[in-house]
Amino acid sequence: MMKFDLTPPKGTKDIAQYQARKLWKIIEICKEVFESFGFEPLFTPAFEKFEILSAKGGLGEAVKEEIYYFKDKGGRELGLRFDLTMPLARFVSANPQIPKPFKRYAIAPVWRYDNPQRLRYREFWQADIDIVGSSSIIADAECLACACEVLNRLGVKNFKIRVNNRILIENLLKPYAGNKIKDVFRIIDKLDKIGEEGVKKELEQISVKAEKILNIIRKDLSEIDGEGKEELEKLFEIASFYGIEKFLKSDLSLVRGLDYYTSLVYEIYLEKERLSFGGGGRYDSLIEIFSSRKIPATGISLGITRLMEILGEDFEKKNAKPKLFVAVIDKDLLKDYIKLCSSLREQGFVCELDVMERNLNKQLDYANSKKFDFVIFFGKRERDKNVIKLRDMQSGEEKEIPLSEIRYLAKYIS
Amino acid sequence: MMKFDLTPPKGTKDIAQYQARKLWKIIEICKEVFESFGFEPLFTPAFEKFEILSAKGGLGEAVKEEIYYFKDKGGRELGLRFDLTMPLARFVSANPQIPKPFKRYAIAPVWRYDNPQRLRYREFWQADIDIVGSSSIIADAECLACACEVLNRLGVKNFKIRVNNRILIENLLKPYAGNKIKDVFRIIDKLDKIGEEGVKKELEQISVKAEKILNIIRKDLSEIDGEGKEELEKLFEIASFYGIEKFLKSDLSLVRGLDYYTSLVYEIYLEKERLSFGGGGRYDSLIEIFSSRKIPATGISLGITRLMEILGEDFEKKNAKPKLFVAVIDKDLLKDYIKLCSSLREQGFVCELDVMERNLNKQLDYANSKKFDFVIFFGKRERDKNVIKLRDMQSGEEKEIPLSEIRYLAKYIS
Repeated sequence: MMKFDLTPPKGTKDIAQYQARKLWKIIEICKEVFESFGFEPLFTPAFEKFEILSAKGGLGEAVKEEIYYFKDKGGRELGLRFDLTMPLARFVSANPQIPKPFKRYAIAPVWRYDNPQRLRYREFWQADIDIVGSSSIIADAECLACACEVLNRLGVKNFKIRVNNRILIENLLKPYAGNKIKDVFRIIDKLDKIGEEGVKKELEQISVKAEKILNIIRKDLSEIDGEGKEELEKLFEIASFYGIEKFLKSDLSLVRGLDYYTSLVYEIYLEKERLSFGGGGRYDSLIEIFSSRKIPATGISLGITRLMEILGEDFEKKNAKPKLFVAVIDKDLLKDYIKLCSSLREQGFVCELDVMERNLNKQLDYANSKKFDFVIFFGKRERDKNVIKLRDMQSGEEKEIPLSEIRYLAKYIS
Repeated sequence: MMKFDLTPPKGTKDIAQYQARKLWKIIEICKEVFESFGFEPLFTPAFEKFEILSAKGGLGEAVKEEIYYFKDKGGRELGLRFDLTMPLARFVSANPQIPKPFKRYAIAPVWRYDNPQRLRYREFWQADIDIVGSSSIIADAECLACACEVLNRLGVKNFKIRVNNRILIENLLKPYAGNKIKDVFRIIDKLDKIGEEGVKKELEQISVKAEKILNIIRKDLSEIDGEGKEELEKLFEIASFYGIEKFLKSDLSLVRGLDYYTSLVYEIYLEKERLSFGGGGRYDSLIEIFSSRKIPATGISLGITRLMEILGEDFEKKNAKPKLFVAVIDKDLLKDYIKLCSSLREQGFVCELDVMERNLNKQLDYANSKKFDFVIFFGKRERDKNVIKLRDMQSGEEKEIPLSEIRYLAKYIS
C-alpha cells in the first residue's frame, strides 16, 4: 500500500469536535451581533486576481512572498486572499451603485504564507465588519462598539483595544524618521514580537533617530499634541456614549502592519497575555486605488480562529441542546425508533439512532463515550405497555414515559 | 491611474445582498437540521496535499486538470479541495481513535477547474453529511432523511432523489462493457448533459455494445434482477419508515461521476428542470486507501450555491427581523440615539444609526432605499415630551411612544 502523509498541509490544521463546535458558535454570535448593528453579509471568492492582491496599500512589496500565489490553467495570476478588506475594496469599486453607507460583514478564512508558530496559522478565520462611505467618527465608534458587543457576548474577559491615529504619530515622528516613515512604522509594528531593544536595533540599522522615536511612542496621549489628537479624543467621547470607553486605551506605539490604514487604528488584545486577536482602522484611500473615486471606509477584523483557542472548552457547552440516543433493541421495531427520532428532532433535541446494528452493550458504550444526556429504550415490553424508558446517563435514573407524551418530552427533561 | 479588472476571477462570483442573506439562511438551516440528526462539525483546510487529492478513488486520472493545483514556497504540491469527502477520508484515517459511527457535517466552498456555465461555477458551496464506520443501510437512510428534512425546511418544491446501486448496474452491464466498465460509467454519467444520442455515440467510440447498454439503463427496477437489488429494496423500505419514500425514485441510469462510490448512489434534482443540486452514495473502499483499514462510509452533499439560486427572493424575507433606522436629527442628542440603538439591538431588532452626518432628507432616502421597516425620530421636542416618534415606512403612519416603553418596543410593532 502507498504510504500517505495524513497531516494537513504545513501551517494549517483540522478543526474538529469541541473546537469545531466552538468555532461555529463564535460564527453564529458574530453573525447575530453584526446583523443587529445593520451589517449585511458579502461572500467574495477565496482567491483574487494577483493584481488586486498586490495593489498598493495592502501587504506592500513583499506581497508575493506572503501569500499563496498560483496560476490557473489559463495562465491567469491568482492568489488566496490574505484578508477580507482588499476583496471588499474591489467589490465596492466594481459596484459603485450600492447605497452608502455600505455596512458589510464577512466571516471566512484567509491565508498567509507566514512562519507557523503557536496560535499563528497559514489558514485562519476572520470575522470582519466595515462601513464604507462614511468619514464620520461615529462610523468608527459603531465598529468598535459592535466588536465589543461580540466579545462581551462571547464572554471574553480582560480584553482591551489599543487605539492610535497614524496621522498624529506620523507627524510626531517625521522630524526623526524623515522619508523613512513607512519603514519606521513597519519596525515599530514588531514591538510586541521583538521588544524595545529589537526595535531600537532595527531603527538604528536604517539610520533614523532610534532613541527619539522610542521616547515619543512611549508617551501618554496627554503629554503630546498635534494634528489627529482631536480625532482620537472625539472617538473616546463617542465611545463613552456606547459605554465602551473602559475597553479603549490610547497607545502611541500602535501603527498596524498593513499599508492601507490612513488615520485611526485599533488592536484588540488580551491584557495579561498581550495576545492580539483582532484589529482594524480607517482606510480612506484604499478604494480610490481601484475606482479613482475617494470613498472613505473603516472597519474591524476579529481573529476568530485565535478566539476559538482562547475560549475555554466550557464555552460551547453553554446552551447546548440535550442529546438523546435511541437504542435499537429490537430490529422489528425499527420503524418505531425512526418515528421516535423524528418527533424528538422536531422538538429541537439532538437525537441519534443506532446506525451500526450493534448489540445493546456496544450502543451504550457509544452513548457514554459521546456524552449523550439520555438514552431511550423501547422493546416489545415497553411497546405492550405503551411507554418508553428514559435513562438519565448522568444519574443513571430511569423513568417510564407514556408514548402519548413523547411530543412533550421537554417536560420530562429538566 | 492604473486600470484594474474588477470582476472576480473567471468562474467565480461575489455573492451579495439578498443572495448572500439567502446563502446564510441556507447554511443556518443545514446546520440546525444536521445537528438535530447528531452530525458534528468538522473544518478541514481549503487546500490539501496533492497526493491526497489525486489518490485513487476521487476525480480519477484527470484530477490535475480539474483542480486548482499549486506549490507553496517550500515546493510542496497542493491543491484546492474539489469536494468535502476526500478531506474527510484523510481526517478519519489520520484520527483512527474517533468513536464510530463518526457522523460529521461540513458546510464550505469547494473548487473545480470546470467550464463555467449557467449555475456551474469554479467555486461553489457544499453542505455535506457523512456517516463513517457503519455498513448498515440505516445509515444511508439517515443521510437521505436528513437531506429531505433540509429541503423541506427550505421549502424546495418538486425535488426528487434518484437512487441506484452501482453493484447492480455493474453486474448487468458487464457482459456488454467488459473491462471498460469505468469508461462506460463515465459516459453514462453524461446522460443529462449530452442526451441518449450523445451517450450512444461515445459508447460506440470505445467499442462496447451501446444499444444493449442503453436498453438496460432505460429499464425499470421491477424488470431486472441481480446482486444489489435487495439492498435497493431495503433502502426503500427503511425510507418509508422515515416517510421519505415519496421523494425517491430508482433509476438504473444513475452512476455518478466520482470514482469512490462502491454501491448505493443518489442524485437530488428538480423534477421539471432535471437540474441536479446534490448527490452522494456509499464509499466503502475510499478510507482504506489512506489507512489500510476497511472503514465503510456513506454520505450526501447538497450543492447549496445552486440551491441559493433556485430559491426565490422571498425565501430570505421570511422570519426576517424588523429593521429600524434611528435618524440623527440633532447632533447634541447623539448619546441618546446611541442608547436607543443599544436598547433596540438588545431586544433583537436590526437597528442602524445614521453614521454619515447627513441631513434628514438624505437619511430618509437611505432608509427608503434600504427598505427599513421603521424610522425613529427624536429631537428636542420629543425629548422634552419624553417620547420618541415611530414612523411605519410602509404605511407612513406615525405614533409617539413614551421613552419608558422603549424596552418593550416589540409591543408597538406588529
